[in-house]
Amino acid sequence: MKIKKIPSASNAWKYPLLIKSILHYSLILDPDREIVYRDKRRYNYFEFNKRVRRFANLLKKMGIDGGETIAVMDYDSHRYLESYFAIPMTGNVLHTINWRLSPAQILYSINHAEDVVLFVNADFLPIVESFDGLMPTVKKIIVFTDNDILPATKLNPEGEYEALLNGEPDEYDFPDFDEDAIATTFYTTGTTGDPKGVFYSHRQIVLHTIGLANTFGFMGSAACRANSSDVYMPLTPLFHVHGWGFPFLATMYSMKQIYIGKFEPEMVLKLFALEHPTVSHCVPTILQMLVSHPAAQALNLSKWKVIIGGSAFPKALAKAALQRGVDVITGYGMSETCPVLTTSYIRQEDKNKDLDFQVEARTRTGVPSPFVELKIMNEENLPVKKNDEEMGEIVVRAPWLTQGYYKEPEKSEALWKGGFLHTGDVSTMNKNNDIKIADRIKDIIKTGGEWISSVDLENMIDQHPAVAEAAVVGIPDAKWGERPHAMIVLKQGQDLSAGQLKEYLLQFIAAGKISKWAVPQSIEFALAIPKTSVGKIDKKVIRAAFML
Amino acid sequence: MKIKKIPSASNAWKYPLLIKSILHYSLILDPDREIVYRDKRRYNYFEFNKRVRRFANLLKKMGIDGGETIAVMDYDSHRYLESYFAIPMTGNVLHTINWRLSPAQILYSINHAEDVVLFVNADFLPIVESFDGLMPTVKKIIVFTDNDILPATKLNPEGEYEALLNGEPDEYDFPDFDEDAIATTFYTTGTTGDPKGVFYSHRQIVLHTIGLANTFGFMGSAACRANSSDVYMPLTPLFHVHGWGFPFLATMYSMKQIYIGKFEPEMVLKLFALEHPTVSHCVPTILQMLVSHPAAQALNLSKWKVIIGGSAFPKALAKAALQRGVDVITGYGMSETCPVLTTSYIRQEDKNKDLDFQVEARTRTGVPSPFVELKIMNEENLPVKKNDEEMGEIVVRAPWLTQGYYKEPEKSEALWKGGFLHTGDVSTMNKNNDIKIADRIKDIIKTGGEWISSVDLENMIDQHPAVAEAAVVGIPDAKWGERPHAMIVLKQGQDLSAGQLKEYLLQFIAAGKISKWAVPQSIEFALAIPKTSVGKIDKKVIRAAFML
Repeated sequence: MKIKKIPSASNAWKYPLLIKSILHYSLILDPDREIVYRDKRRYNYFEFNKRVRRFANLLKKMGIDGGETIAVMDYDSHRYLESYFAIPMTGNVLHTINWRLSPAQILYSINHAEDVVLFVNADFLPIVESFDGLMPTVKKIIVFTDNDILPATKLNPEGEYEALLNGEPDEYDFPDFDEDAIATTFYTTGTTGDPKGVFYSHRQIVLHTIGLANTFGFMGSAACRANSSDVYMPLTPLFHVHGWGFPFLATMYSMKQIYIGKFEPEMVLKLFALEHPTVSHCVPTILQMLVSHPAAQALNLSKWKVIIGGSAFPKALAKAALQRGVDVITGYGMSETCPVLTTSYIRQEDKNKDLDFQVEARTRTGVPSPFVELKIMNEENLPVKKNDEEMGEIVVRAPWLTQGYYKEPEKSEALWKGGFLHTGDVSTMNKNNDIKIADRIKDIIKTGGEWISSVDLENMIDQHPAVAEAAVVGIPDAKWGERPHAMIVLKQGQDLSAGQLKEYLLQFIAAGKISKWAVPQSIEFALAIPKTSVGKIDKKVIRAAFML
Repeated sequence: MKIKKIPSASNAWKYPLLIKSILHYSLILDPDREIVYRDKRRYNYFEFNKRVRRFANLLKKMGIDGGETIAVMDYDSHRYLESYFAIPMTGNVLHTINWRLSPAQILYSINHAEDVVLFVNADFLPIVESFDGLMPTVKKIIVFTDNDILPATKLNPEGEYEALLNGEPDEYDFPDFDEDAIATTFYTTGTTGDPKGVFYSHRQIVLHTIGLANTFGFMGSAACRANSSDVYMPLTPLFHVHGWGFPFLATMYSMKQIYIGKFEPEMVLKLFALEHPTVSHCVPTILQMLVSHPAAQALNLSKWKVIIGGSAFPKALAKAALQRGVDVITGYGMSETCPVLTTSYIRQEDKNKDLDFQVEARTRTGVPSPFVELKIMNEENLPVKKNDEEMGEIVVRAPWLTQGYYKEPEKSEALWKGGFLHTGDVSTMNKNNDIKIADRIKDIIKTGGEWISSVDLENMIDQHPAVAEAAVVGIPDAKWGERPHAMIVLKQGQDLSAGQLKEYLLQFIAAGKISKWAVPQSIEFALAIPKTSVGKIDKKVIRAAFML
């Protein structure tokens, strides 16, 4: 097949998609709006732009001439936002360090990414001091503080960020370059092995940013619609997939932004009362904490839109939040996807439907964002029926997916097997292209040709009044392939037998929610359920006991 | 300066920005919504997608294998919309023919573009018949009709579109290819010379589409906000800069769309009453016609958003429309810019300000859309002051500007002189980055270092009760460079002298609206003002009388 191209004028500007053009627009709509950091600092977009240029001059003075990786280890702050622009716009790669990883994993990621400069919050200096002599590529360390005073440290840093910034000129001419230049990297952990580095180009971040604006601005869902006059307060760490991409969007549209620093519920509630955020995103536990906090009872939350991600959105929490007037929805994505893939979608004609409807619709994984080509493939590698019953793995194409794992060719090939990114998530889809994640593919229980969600079973068992916590895994079965096995922790002073639990589960069979094959064959009562370092159930450990 | 790149997995999908991905999404949000053509036809997005695939099969059957240019000459219709997708998605170039040009210009554009196939509405067959034997590249002709009956013609066409489409299979696997492949072309006319061909790539059209969604969905203006639940009815010809790009946007978001066919006010009003459009775009005269039509007086227009472009939006018309409840704004762009560059912007805090404020703000040229880098450069090639007084030429960069004129290297270089596209429009800018076009640069009057807008002067003279029409041009002056010259047509039975008119203009000097140098030195009373073929004042002809 042929295509046609036409020569351009010699000076025609093709317009590479660079983060530079996001920042450029921040001075157009309302540059007088402010970026706020706790109760410590506030400034407008003119000042923000100046500071980004000083940051770029600081990098230049340190001899950084592009193509280097520079790490940032901070709470959510105006400084972090500055690094989102100054580091990539000088042709360098921003490495956002997840300080919740173990020290060994953090050190691994610094060395694997070959960071040459480290910007670190004073609170994390003890961790970095423990790496002294073990980071061969790191040449310079700069310290972030809230009081502008450089603390004593054996690390011999360049200095304190504010003082260094103040010494730099306001002007910097950001260059144009190839839109496929890498802009960001960060590390994601599974339950096994070393963290893996994902990476994103300027082009990908720009397209994700305007994709977000399309999703929240033009898609026309009756839930969580946002625009540039909203006030943005992230409640997830900025190291986590570019703060879900929203800081780029908020900056582009010169939205008022509020950064909370170290997470302290009192500070968040204080900022809420003073600065009136209207749009946030967070994991369910943060929403739970804020909605149930005694000091939050007096707050008017009815103008607050919240996108929930990171783990499944519990219906009870959705209900409680909706009853407080919070406009909550689910967003879905992962470290490998920049991140946004889907959001809950409420049709205009459904916006006044009752609370039960809203809870159901807003806790679904949702419909694909513009440009996200999403398929759910069953074991025969065919798309599942749109009946919300048949399960398969979500595979995707989008303009903003990591093109592999850094220096991990085998894992990269597995991620992109067949030309689609494999999410490892198992889902159903209804006739409206609205998906509902059931489980991780490694945790799904495959029994006699049927797929059973371990998460669904855990939720059912958790509803028994005697149960404190439950974990369900598939264990090998000669006849059925796998059968479900449940590990259960009872509440203090409660008693329950395996037989009583099986009896209890019959109601879900009767209601058509599970088949009789889903009732766990073996049930084990334990004092605690194995967990990973980030507090998730470690199903690999539970399964290990049954492997030969 | 260095940048960093990282190898991709061998199967990683980079995701070229192709029109294909716009159509793909049309089946996600609400594919049951309908595309309506007059009172003749209506179908949903499943059917639309099928028809686009049949169209592609039809091209294949005719031996078209990509890289060819295919012309369409039709009123606004579902068929036209189908061609927007089927032609570029098969690697071909869609040539949208402006049937308002003179036959000679149309023939020139067909030959210059090297069209190989021509899709033509039966109404335009007489024009095409007059080209018989004069179109060496055109191999096939297909006729669009509303009654599915092929009319008699000496052109020996392939057949009638519906019949041909019905013979084709529903399946077609649209290929992926380079996003820089040219997708569309069309011809634009100045007052001199042959029409010039502009051209747009798949990447440019995709970026323009999501740029529109950003502009109308996320920018947060209190005027004319739209989303996918709006009902779209274009009132400008689809040959004119891709119907301002909206048909791509509307299709992507599976919006209900209404196509009016041949422009007949009665049909438009009928469709208005039956189909309830909520968003349209048109030139001022069309809005005038619809708002003042006797049959429109009974219509409720209060849910209608209208973007006005193509020529300056008269304040009296804006006022009349706003009084009817129409949410009107100005949009600015040109054939060379895909087209959208700016739109009027009403800040949230200004949305309840009075009618005079709204008229003023909504008739301004507006603020740049996301990713539009717009500068106004004065005669010293420096940006003008943001005082809404200093004038200069608008120059732009954006991801969606034509990269030249087809086979016109010299004109291409002039368009892109210095790496910015020169619009030829003269404007001021206020402190909010809100611009207001004053004139075309070739019509601005440069006198003693000052720039005077001929359009402003014409508007002032037009306000005199004796004046039917006025044209003002700059004529050479040994001392001042240029001085204004006015050509005036009086109303039937009215009398006015040059001295009386100069006296009348003193009030505008007193009000600070013009300087005393702006008062026309020479005033000429005529029976008619020279016009171009499209009805614009032909200032070149007026000036010619003063050139030696």
